[in-house]
Amino acid sequence: MKILVINSGSSSIKYQLLDMDTESVMVTGLVERIGEAQGSLVNKTFPGTDKQTVTELDQPIPNHSEGLRLSIELICGGDNAVCSIKDIDAVGHRVVAGGEKFCAPVMVKDDMWPDLKETERLAPLHNPANLGGAKDAMELFPDVPHVLVFDTAFHSTIPPHAFMYALPYECYEKDNIRRYGAHGTSHKFVAGECARLIGKPAEETNIITIHLGNGASMAAVENGKCVDTSMGLTPLEGLVMGTRSGDIDPAVHNYLAVNRGMSIADIDTMLNKESGLKGLCGMNDMRDIHAAIEKGDKHAELALGVQTYRNRKYVSSYMGVLGRVDAIVFTAGIGENDAIVRQKSLEGLENFGVKIDEEVNNQRAKAPLKISADDSLVEIWVIPTNEELAIARETKSIVE
Amino acid sequence: MKILVINSGSSSIKYQLLDMDTESVMVTGLVERIGEAQGSLVNKTFPGTDKQTVTELDQPIPNHSEGLRLSIELICGGDNAVCSIKDIDAVGHRVVAGGEKFCAPVMVKDDMWPDLKETERLAPLHNPANLGGAKDAMELFPDVPHVLVFDTAFHSTIPPHAFMYALPYECYEKDNIRRYGAHGTSHKFVAGECARLIGKPAEETNIITIHLGNGASMAAVENGKCVDTSMGLTPLEGLVMGTRSGDIDPAVHNYLAVNRGMSIADIDTMLNKESGLKGLCGMNDMRDIHAAIEKGDKHAELALGVQTYRNRKYVSSYMGVLGRVDAIVFTAGIGENDAIVRQKSLEGLENFGVKIDEEVNNQRAKAPLKISADDSLVEIWVIPTNEELAIARETKSIVE
Repeated sequence: MKILVINSGSSSIKYQLLDMDTESVMVTGLVERIGEAQGSLVNKTFPGTDKQTVTELDQPIPNHSEGLRLSIELICGGDNAVCSIKDIDAVGHRVVAGGEKFCAPVMVKDDMWPDLKETERLAPLHNPANLGGAKDAMELFPDVPHVLVFDTAFHSTIPPHAFMYALPYECYEKDNIRRYGAHGTSHKFVAGECARLIGKPAEETNIITIHLGNGASMAAVENGKCVDTSMGLTPLEGLVMGTRSGDIDPAVHNYLAVNRGMSIADIDTMLNKESGLKGLCGMNDMRDIHAAIEKGDKHAELALGVQTYRNRKYVSSYMGVLGRVDAIVFTAGIGENDAIVRQKSLEGLENFGVKIDEEVNNQRAKAPLKISADDSLVEIWVIPTNEELAIARETKSIVE
Repeated sequence: MKILVINSGSSSIKYQLLDMDTESVMVTGLVERIGEAQGSLVNKTFPGTDKQTVTELDQPIPNHSEGLRLSIELICGGDNAVCSIKDIDAVGHRVVAGGEKFCAPVMVKDDMWPDLKETERLAPLHNPANLGGAKDAMELFPDVPHVLVFDTAFHSTIPPHAFMYALPYECYEKDNIRRYGAHGTSHKFVAGECARLIGKPAEETNIITIHLGNGASMAAVENGKCVDTSMGLTPLEGLVMGTRSGDIDPAVHNYLAVNRGMSIADIDTMLNKESGLKGLCGMNDMRDIHAAIEKGDKHAELALGVQTYRNRKYVSSYMGVLGRVDAIVFTAGIGENDAIVRQKSLEGLENFGVKIDEEVNNQRAKAPLKISADDSLVEIWVIPTNEELAIARETKSIVE
C-alpha cells in the first residue's frame, strides 16, 4: 500500500509518499512561496539512499492546486517517476485542530464539510490551509480515500478537570474555549514507540512525552491515553518556545494595554512571534544560544534557564498527574539533538527516580536512545519523531 | 511594645492593636463603605476573651483619615479604651506590591515617596489605598515609626529563571513585567511556623506553602527562602480562585476579542471577577459548592475537580523545583477548613512520599495540626495564618 501524506500550510505544501509495506519513504517534497511572484518546488525520490534524485523547480505557483499538480507530475511522470498515479492507494492530510467533533482520524465524506468549517476558528492560521489543501487533493485524486489526521485527536482523552479553564462556563459551552493541545500525532507516535522499546503494552505504560522543536509541548500519557498536555486552546500556552511565550500571567495583556497602549492584536502577535527564546535573548535557534552562552552572553543564559526551568516544572507536574511514571521521552529538533536542554530539564529530579546518564546523553544518534542512568527508576529516552509516518499509519488503519 | 497594624483598602480599613510582649490582640476593627452615604465601623476590644466589648457605629465616613480618627477614638478614649494614644509604639501597614525596590519591610522616610508612587502601577487597585492609608496614619501618629510591610517581599528571593516570563526582554527592563507574587506575608509566616513545629531550622527546611482563600497561591520555600510562587505580575496567575481564573492560554484574550468583540478591559474584569470557581459553577464559597455537589450539581463537581487538580499540579511541580520536600502546609480560609480540598489536592502523590491521614485531616482545629500519615515521607500540616501578627512582628523587628 502506497500512501501520500500532505501537510498544506498557508503558502506551502510538504508531502511524502510512503510504501507502507516496508514503511519506507519513496518521495519527499516541499512546495514554497505559493501565490508569490516566484515559487519553488523541491522533490526528492528515495531520500537518503543511493537511488536518491533531487529535482528543483523555480517558477510561479499560483495556488495550492497547481503546487500539488506539479508535485504529482514529478512523482508519477518523467525520468524520476517512482510509481504510476494509480498506485497511490490513499492520501493522508495533516489538520491542526479537530475541535471536540473530530477526536480521531476520519475518512472525508461530503457531509463533513460544515463541521470541518467550524474547526477553522480554533486554528485560523492553519486549518483553512490544511482543509483547503485536502479539497484540492480530492479533486486531483477523486478515486482514492482521503483521511484527515488531526493534531488534537490524541488529546481527546484528556478529562474535563484537565481540559477546562476556570472561566465562565459559557466560554466553553458557547465558544468552545478549552484545552485542545497540539502535536498530538507526534506525542502519540513517540509514546507508542517508547512502550514498544521498554517492552510493555502501551495500555499499561505511563509516559511523559516532551516534544521540543520551535514549537514545544509536553503530554502526560496514562496507560496509553493522553490525560494532559501543555498546549491549550491554541499552541501558545505552556512551555517556552522559539518565539512563543508559553505561560504568562493573563493580566499581562491589560498591563500592556494600560502602560503601552497596545491592542489585543498587537499583544497576540508579540506573544506568538516576538517572545519565547527570541524575546529573552534575540535568538531562537538553540545552537546559536549555546554558542552565545559560551561567549558569556547573559541573556542567552537566562533564556536557556527560563526554558529548561519551565520544562522541569512541567515534567514534575506531570509526574504528580500520573502518580507513577515508566518513562520520559524527548523528541523533535531540540529534544532529539540538544543534550544540555535535556539534562537541565531533568535537573534536581533524582529524588523522584529520574536520573540521566550524562555520558550517554551526550551521544548523537539517529535511532532511539535510552539516556537514563542504570539506577534511574524512570527510563529516559530520546526517540526521533516521524509525523509523516504516523499520519500514514493512521491513514492505512482507517482505509483498511 | 504595642503595635497598631493597618490594612487600608479602597473603601475600607482593617486594623488590629497587638501587645507584642505577649503577641496578644487588644483590639480588632473594621471600617467599611468609606465615602458612601452610610459608613460603618465595628471595634472589638480583647476579642474572643471574656473582656470582649463590641462597639458599632453607623454614620457617614467621608474618607480614610476620618475612619482612622474614629477608630483611634474608640481604641484610646471612652469607656472601652484599652490604652492611651501615647502607648502605641509603632504602626505597621500592609502594602500589596513593593516591586523590585522594596524587597523587605521599611520604616517610611520622606524621600521614599517617589519610589513608592512608582509601585502603584503594579497593583493599581490596592497600592494607592494602602499607601494613602499610611499617609493618613502618619498625620494622626506623627511621632511614632511607621513601617510598610510588602506582600511581595518574601518573594524577592525568587531567582531570575523563575521570575522572568519568556517575553521580549524590554517588557522586564522598561515595564517591570515579571513574577512578583503576593500573599508573601502569609507564606513567610506559615513557613516559619512549620519549620518551628517540625523542629528544624528554617534555613535547612524545604516547604511548600499553600494559601487557599478567596485568593489562592502557592510558594516553594527552599532553606527558608522563597524560590517560586504561583501568582505573577498580579494576583491573577496560578491557582483556581474564588472569582479569578488563574492560568489560562494567553491566546484566550485574542480569541474572545475576535469571537465576542470583547475589549481588553472587559476580558480583564471577566478573568478577575467572573471566573474561577464562580465562573465554573456560579458559586465561590466552598461550603456552597460542597453542598451543591451533595445534591448532584455537576458544575460544582467540575469546579472542585478543576481547582484541586490545578493545586495538585502545582504541588508536584514545586516538589520538582525543591528536589526534596520536608513539609506541605495548608493555610487561609479554605486551606484551614476544607478537608476535601486538602485531600483531593494531594491525591495520587503517594509514590512521591505524600500521604494524608484521612481521619486526622477531617478533624477541625484552631491550632496547627499535622495531617500526614505516619508513613508519609513529607509532613503535611494545617497552620492558621495570621497576617496581622506577621506584620506586627516585622514592624517590631524593624523598630528595634
